[in-house]
Amino acid sequence: MQQENKHIEPKVTLVGAGPGDPDLVTLKGIKAIREADVILYDALINEELLSYAKSSCTLIYVGKRAERISTSQDYINKLLVDYALTHGHVVRLKGGDPFVFGRGGEELDYVRQFNIPTAVIPGISSSVGLTGLQQIPLTYRGISESFWVITGSTADGRLSDDLMTAVRTDATVVVLMGYAKLAQIVALYQQHGKGKLPIALIQNGSLSNERVAIGRVNNILDEAKRNLVGVPAIIVLGEVVAKHQEFIKIKSELQSLTV
Amino acid sequence: MQQENKHIEPKVTLVGAGPGDPDLVTLKGIKAIREADVILYDALINEELLSYAKSSCTLIYVGKRAERISTSQDYINKLLVDYALTHGHVVRLKGGDPFVFGRGGEELDYVRQFNIPTAVIPGISSSVGLTGLQQIPLTYRGISESFWVITGSTADGRLSDDLMTAVRTDATVVVLMGYAKLAQIVALYQQHGKGKLPIALIQNGSLSNERVAIGRVNNILDEAKRNLVGVPAIIVLGEVVAKHQEFIKIKSELQSLTV
Repeated sequence: MQQENKHIEPKVTLVGAGPGDPDLVTLKGIKAIREADVILYDALINEELLSYAKSSCTLIYVGKRAERISTSQDYINKLLVDYALTHGHVVRLKGGDPFVFGRGGEELDYVRQFNIPTAVIPGISSSVGLTGLQQIPLTYRGISESFWVITGSTADGRLSDDLMTAVRTDATVVVLMGYAKLAQIVALYQQHGKGKLPIALIQNGSLSNERVAIGRVNNILDEAKRNLVGVPAIIVLGEVVAKHQEFIKIKSELQSLTV
Repeated sequence: MQQENKHIEPKVTLVGAGPGDPDLVTLKGIKAIREADVILYDALINEELLSYAKSSCTLIYVGKRAERISTSQDYINKLLVDYALTHGHVVRLKGGDPFVFGRGGEELDYVRQFNIPTAVIPGISSSVGLTGLQQIPLTYRGISESFWVITGSTADGRLSDDLMTAVRTDATVVVLMGYAKLAQIVALYQQHGKGKLPIALIQNGSLSNERVAIGRVNNILDEAKRNLVGVPAIIVLGEVVAKHQEFIKIKSELQSLTV
């Protein structure tokens, strides 16, 4: 039943859906989904989350595909405003956290031009969440005093300058959306004498089709093939990766062979 | 009613409670709290989360106080093992995410020595969550290709070497547990010609007593006083802070004065 005279209160809320497992959304995120009049959702979110929406909620898929990334961002921005003005509360449901390479900032900038109130509900970024589920501690006293999350997809296609700096530090480095450049990243770390640094690749993390490869920079390309890891996978570089249970097992097997 | 013959299955799960607001825990975290036979919880978690625990659950406060940090970590490690062996499933509920400066890695290492199964449920780190709630995007195309989360409390009390490197990059920098060293951090950024860099301080983020100060490196110490910000606050440094609504307001006020 439509209410013709319903007073529309436009609002746009960016909600982080987490890294995949629908149980890794926050309670606050679920509450926003329940209240939403319209939900615009990404390819990266778990569609089970849409079952929290009320029956009158309009669900719109805006998964971006490679061939038209730039036009579709403009299109999404316009949809956010149009639906807020005509329907009320729009939830923009994004994979991971909305502000970790999610272009959430650009969406807010656009929406605010129309004086539409905005809110953000953070989500579990794959950088923190998928490492955590694999029991790889991002920080560890005496091993790593920081972690640095870097995009592998800069606007002009090169490796980020930040990665050139990161390779020279002891920070745990997490590269998102950089799997296609893995061979380049491996070469960079080898050039800096870090061929033995522990490294992990995690694809479809937190889901039933999760694939993981653990190794050192020098052998990770082989490990990736052996474990059938492919795009999209996150890359984790740092001594903390040696805390992964599989890494510990490999090490102890090697030791028992040499005894 | 006690079941004398109950079969004990020891297990330890680290659960991230998020940055303060109890609605910022994940559904997976709530499920673990519901199942727990024992919960060991920190000073930093919101105690409302304990209401999800079953009535037979044993709740133990292990909030660390400054005077005996090192001994109490050993004590917590032992409690985790003792309770797992005698009671079954122990949930270690930690503020933020268990692996972001939470010493979660050390707890897992200790527990594993006893062949007790372990699991980790990630949480919203204050580094990602509190910036998000303030609508400060950690990354933004053309402004920041990465974010770097650094501890302000190194083992020996100095500023982290990582911060010395971070000041020379365009990464968004988030310093956790470093508020006591704010003046030192301000001096470091000024020495590197970054006195005009936008900076934010967030205390008690996501809670009703939240306090925020927004400014530039050169005036943030005054802004902190004016807004009564104190320990514990997170520090956010980077051009993305200029996206904060209060920062935009200040800028437009200055512009209207000069027109």
